[in-house]
Amino acid sequence: MIIVMKQGASDDQLAHVVSLIEKHGLKAHVSRGVERTIIGCIGDEARIEPLPFQAVSGVERVMPVVKPYRMAARETHPQGSVVKVGGGSVPLVEIGSGSLTVMAGPCAVENAPLLDEIASSVKDSGAHLLRGGAFKPRTSPYAFQGLGVDGLKFLREAGDRFGLPVVSEVRNVRQVETCLDYVDMFQVGARNMQNFDLLMEVGRTTKPVLLKRGLASTVEELLMSAEYVMSMGNHGVVLCERGIRTFEKATRFTLDVSAVPILKRLSHLPVIVDPSHAAGQAWLVPFLALAAVAAGADGIIVEVHSRPEDALCDGDQALLPDTFRSLVHDLNSLRSSLPPASYAPWLS
Amino acid sequence: MIIVMKQGASDDQLAHVVSLIEKHGLKAHVSRGVERTIIGCIGDEARIEPLPFQAVSGVERVMPVVKPYRMAARETHPQGSVVKVGGGSVPLVEIGSGSLTVMAGPCAVENAPLLDEIASSVKDSGAHLLRGGAFKPRTSPYAFQGLGVDGLKFLREAGDRFGLPVVSEVRNVRQVETCLDYVDMFQVGARNMQNFDLLMEVGRTTKPVLLKRGLASTVEELLMSAEYVMSMGNHGVVLCERGIRTFEKATRFTLDVSAVPILKRLSHLPVIVDPSHAAGQAWLVPFLALAAVAAGADGIIVEVHSRPEDALCDGDQALLPDTFRSLVHDLNSLRSSLPPASYAPWLS
Amino acid sequence: MIIVMKQGASDDQLAHVVSLIEKHGLKAHVSRGVERTIIGCIGDEARIEPLPFQAVSGVERVMPVVKPYRMAARETHPQGSVVKVGGGSVPLVEIGSGSLTVMAGPCAVENAPLLDEIASSVKDSGAHLLRGGAFKPRTSPYAFQGLGVDGLKFLREAGDRFGLPVVSEVRNVRQVETCLDYVDMFQVGARNMQNFDLLMEVGRTTKPVLLKRGLASTVEELLMSAEYVMSMGNHGVVLCERGIRTFEKATRFTLDVSAVPILKRLSHLPVIVDPSHAAGQAWLVPFLALAAVAAGADGIIVEVHSRPEDALCDGDQALLPDTFRSLVHDLNSLRSSLPPASYAPWLS
Amino acid sequence: MIIVMKQGASDDQLAHVVSLIEKHGLKAHVSRGVERTIIGCIGDEARIEPLPFQAVSGVERVMPVVKPYRMAARETHPQGSVVKVGGGSVPLVEIGSGSLTVMAGPCAVENAPLLDEIASSVKDSGAHLLRGGAFKPRTSPYAFQGLGVDGLKFLREAGDRFGLPVVSEVRNVRQVETCLDYVDMFQVGARNMQNFDLLMEVGRTTKPVLLKRGLASTVEELLMSAEYVMSMGNHGVVLCERGIRTFEKATRFTLDVSAVPILKRLSHLPVIVDPSHAAGQAWLVPFLALAAVAAGADGIIVEVHSRPEDALCDGDQALLPDTFRSLVHDLNSLRSSLPPASYAPWLS
Repeated sequence: MIIVMKQGASDDQLAHVVSLIEKHGLKAHVSRGVERTIIGCIGDEARIEPLPFQAVSGVERVMPVVKPYRMAARETHPQGSVVKVGGGSVPLVEIGSGSLTVMAGPCAVENAPLLDEIASSVKDSGAHLLRGGAFKPRTSPYAFQGLGVDGLKFLREAGDRFGLPVVSEVRNVRQVETCLDYVDMFQVGARNMQNFDLLMEVGRTTKPVLLKRGLASTVEELLMSAEYVMSMGNHGVVLCERGIRTFEKATRFTLDVSAVPILKRLSHLPVIVDPSHAAGQAWLVPFLALAAVAAGADGIIVEVHSRPEDALCDGDQALLPDTFRSLVHDLNSLRSSLPPASYAPWLS
Repeated sequence: MIIVMKQGASDDQLAHVVSLIEKHGLKAHVSRGVERTIIGCIGDEARIEPLPFQAVSGVERVMPVVKPYRMAARETHPQGSVVKVGGGSVPLVEIGSGSLTVMAGPCAVENAPLLDEIASSVKDSGAHLLRGGAFKPRTSPYAFQGLGVDGLKFLREAGDRFGLPVVSEVRNVRQVETCLDYVDMFQVGARNMQNFDLLMEVGRTTKPVLLKRGLASTVEELLMSAEYVMSMGNHGVVLCERGIRTFEKATRFTLDVSAVPILKRLSHLPVIVDPSHAAGQAWLVPFLALAAVAAGADGIIVEVHSRPEDALCDGDQALLPDTFRSLVHDLNSLRSSLPPASYAPWLS
Repeated sequence: MIIVMKQGASDDQLAHVVSLIEKHGLKAHVSRGVERTIIGCIGDEARIEPLPFQAVSGVERVMPVVKPYRMAARETHPQGSVVKVGGGSVPLVEIGSGSLTVMAGPCAVENAPLLDEIASSVKDSGAHLLRGGAFKPRTSPYAFQGLGVDGLKFLREAGDRFGLPVVSEVRNVRQVETCLDYVDMFQVGARNMQNFDLLMEVGRTTKPVLLKRGLASTVEELLMSAEYVMSMGNHGVVLCERGIRTFEKATRFTLDVSAVPILKRLSHLPVIVDPSHAAGQAWLVPFLALAAVAAGADGIIVEVHSRPEDALCDGDQALLPDTFRSLVHDLNSLRSSLPPASYAPWLS
Repeated sequence: MIIVMKQGASDDQLAHVVSLIEKHGLKAHVSRGVERTIIGCIGDEARIEPLPFQAVSGVERVMPVVKPYRMAARETHPQGSVVKVGGGSVPLVEIGSGSLTVMAGPCAVENAPLLDEIASSVKDSGAHLLRGGAFKPRTSPYAFQGLGVDGLKFLREAGDRFGLPVVSEVRNVRQVETCLDYVDMFQVGARNMQNFDLLMEVGRTTKPVLLKRGLASTVEELLMSAEYVMSMGNHGVVLCERGIRTFEKATRFTLDVSAVPILKRLSHLPVIVDPSHAAGQAWLVPFLALAAVAAGADGIIVEVHSRPEDALCDGDQALLPDTFRSLVHDLNSLRSSLPPASYAPWLS
């Protein structure tokens, strides 16, 4: 940590700051510049991180030097980690291993026959995981909230029938235990990215977690949330960029495609992209999916529905099965045209 | 709802949209303009709200006309509602009744003697409620997470001792029952504004709820979250503006002072402001508090600490007791200089 | 235009709004719904667009139906327009014709030998245009402001010597005439996107214009600025996405990759991307360039410098010549893997 | 400036950075921490500010310590500067002297009789300056662009007739000389805040400048733009907060009320607020004006129109003369209730 003193700060003020630093077992390295005096804190920054230096008299600014996340940082695992999903009744899928992972399915599980129809189709088109919401977070209390446990059952059955590990959103701490029996991977949604109790609860399980970036969260905050999960012992975290909130209203959210290479540089965790929620409009989804893979994403998660007009949730953004089939083909073609350093930077 | 057809949409496409509207029991009112045909949907908009018209062929745009919240809307309660907090062992405080409500206390409850010291001081300065976190949502898993139930006990005792109803944050659905025994008012934090299960859980209790605006939530989304609480039967909701996330980094968040009059116009619920979290720096807090009251806020919630340098949480933004005392005086003086229409728009 | 009346608006208020509409030669089509009355305005919306209906008593909301830009709209030119740059002493380059256009060069023209070195290198690597700033807009008055006319001369000479049309930024109305003698294409920078006098001034010339999106401008505003140029007679406008300002600080700006397909759908004008300014860091530039091309961009403009450490401007984000060479190869490889509908949507 | 080296940076990399610093005449103060080595640069930071240290091998991050503006900084003028406007044919108004300055008038000058009517009314209500646009920056080329020089003449005549100094927007460098004959104060609009040539051009005159904050500009960038004007010799700069662009759409822009105290702390220049453009709706303007004054603004600039329905520009947000009259009364009443430290922080 570096502390910048105000112009004209007194020697007493400086001495007080130094004493605070030393009281916590760090050394203070003072540099007197022409306009400002700065203090470098040498030692374990975590011990003084919570101190309110801003509130200390004479201090102008505090600048942390060390990253606040550790287990999620690439330094601790330079080669990039591979997250394994499924196994047993369904194939084992390895996310981050070098090939592209495709997760697809309806926004919400609506009924068993429809889910089977979609699952069969996406499997056939090359999807590796089946997605589908049973507990839907909806802005309005009057909107369809999902089928709950019935939805989970249908999802499990469809996954087993068509050989697809399943991923579904868990919305609160109480649902974690229930979901554990049905899903191969937990999804923590954007609106829960800083629901710290939920992060700790899934962190206590052994199933992998798909962690979506909050719609106004920085990449650093996303990594801190991954750290929450990992700090409880669960290292199977996959990060997901799904669009951030900006002033632009032509899209539902603004896909922050830069977050893909930035996250891969800062962290060893796999990074996937959800182009459906960012776009909010089906025609736009393939463009964003292609951009995501070009930027080095390890996979995508995309909404597919065979009758979008009748969908109970987010029909506007669901791809038709035929469009999805073409998209998977185009993504694989694009991926094979890329130099490896684009998606596996540790190779270069 | 108004549906705008694409330029050159066919008669078949138009007929299909009309049939979708009529299938759900509404009437379609078609206006053929020079460049576009538009369709007005007459009837209960809620029945067609979830339909993915955007995905229907020939449709350019869909524009909702009716507000998606109802119980929270001013139309249902033109005079402004008053939320009552406390009673029994502590005084009854009425928020939204015309006088200014001041909530104050430390960011986190740290220990009983310190809390008593702060509680005694803020009571003496004119505060009406005591705030203090027992379950702290922290960005880092390595930061102080609060004292938990012990914190709630200390808070309850301090409230009773000094005659202050207490408000504390509840972070997940499991904590609601626990907190019920100790607090006079639940706080739902900004990061949980769209934790819909938590909203429903506090909505099933009879204790009032302080609902903070999410840091990237629109005022409409805040009102939808209030609607969640109210839809479960609990109408005691107080809205709280606490700063939104923008590109500006000179403050921790950007206080959206316009949200105060906007919320009061759209809703009958009381509106308070948290200047401490918006500012992130103690010196700035009084300016924002004055601005909030000038804009018509029904109250403020502010962090006070007698030894900010030693605070375990957010010491940078805590006011010293003396500054708080002056601030309360200045706020009351300002409030009495305002015309009533500024804080009670239904009077004009 | 659609006008939504307030719930409970009186018949007199409705009649007044109708009379305002009819006074301007349009017809008013009134639909009385269950909760609201709405008025569709039939006729030339442009005639009533400036009217302050929001200020008229009884009006709740005003919703425009027709897009405010015309010449820039795809409807007026469904096949996508091709913008020609150069010819004469340098090759003629066609932007938007189906192949990828690459513009490259230093941030600022610093001196003739260095510029020649860079120009020679980027030409050799496959660039089609040479970029270089002579009039630099700098946040600080104390920063290097460019070589002015000398810079333009060096740029012209380098372009002629190496067979590259040249593009350079024009910063104010007075410079347009000066630049006209030296450049093949004007650049209007992000900070000048709504410098309407400058737009009109370049609109009066016959040289094509590279129009960068303002850092907080919507895609609609970008198209309105293109309309300014076109309304003066100059239809040679190329749109450029270069990152928008958001809360995220891990990148200098947030590249809005969705803007590429959105702009191509709304407009027939070619769309290119500047990954250098969005990234602000050289290592990130190739990832963003690949994403841009995958999303369907007609070209990219990128900063290249042979000695970034000595650059007088933005050395942090300049690619080394070798990195640029690989990038051009990778971009072409990626482009050839894409289905044509990705970059020429009118074909599908 | 502080330079943070990457974990594992080599001694050679460190030595190279040190040599770069010393080459420019500064001293390098190296602190080897547990995880990172940091280098404090001692000397004139401006000499190394443009160096692309980010691009230098081994460097992780660069943190400037000194503020990039100087003449605009409060350190250079602790007491707060007073900007004088008018004199001669109209009264001399002192902005920043302790009393509240009110600027009012129509968005655009439309014709002489209407302007006189408005000028007479606002003077009578307590306004100190008359505002009115002659050169209007409009998003659409098809919108009313102002009366040009005729507008300036009408404005000058109205100002002289009613004893009000006049302020009007100058949109490009060529208009500066023209405006000089008519206005008492230049306005540089939000969209031109980084039109650096315009800033320098008004900086070469001796008339004061009202500098509006760009809609996505940080307070630091606003101060850098003030620095541009001041660096040319003109120290008569008044800063104006007018709302920033955020995700919230309930208001046209989000008034950043915190910017008032922040700017006054960082700079000695007077700060006023434009509530009209931030609100975009007349009913909201008084609330924002009150908030601005409560936060310590030295004045406000507000749009007033006697027949908003007929206004050629921004009628939605214009106050009626009677509302303006009440507002001025309420603002003065509020101001007199404030402790002086709220608007004159150097007193405390």
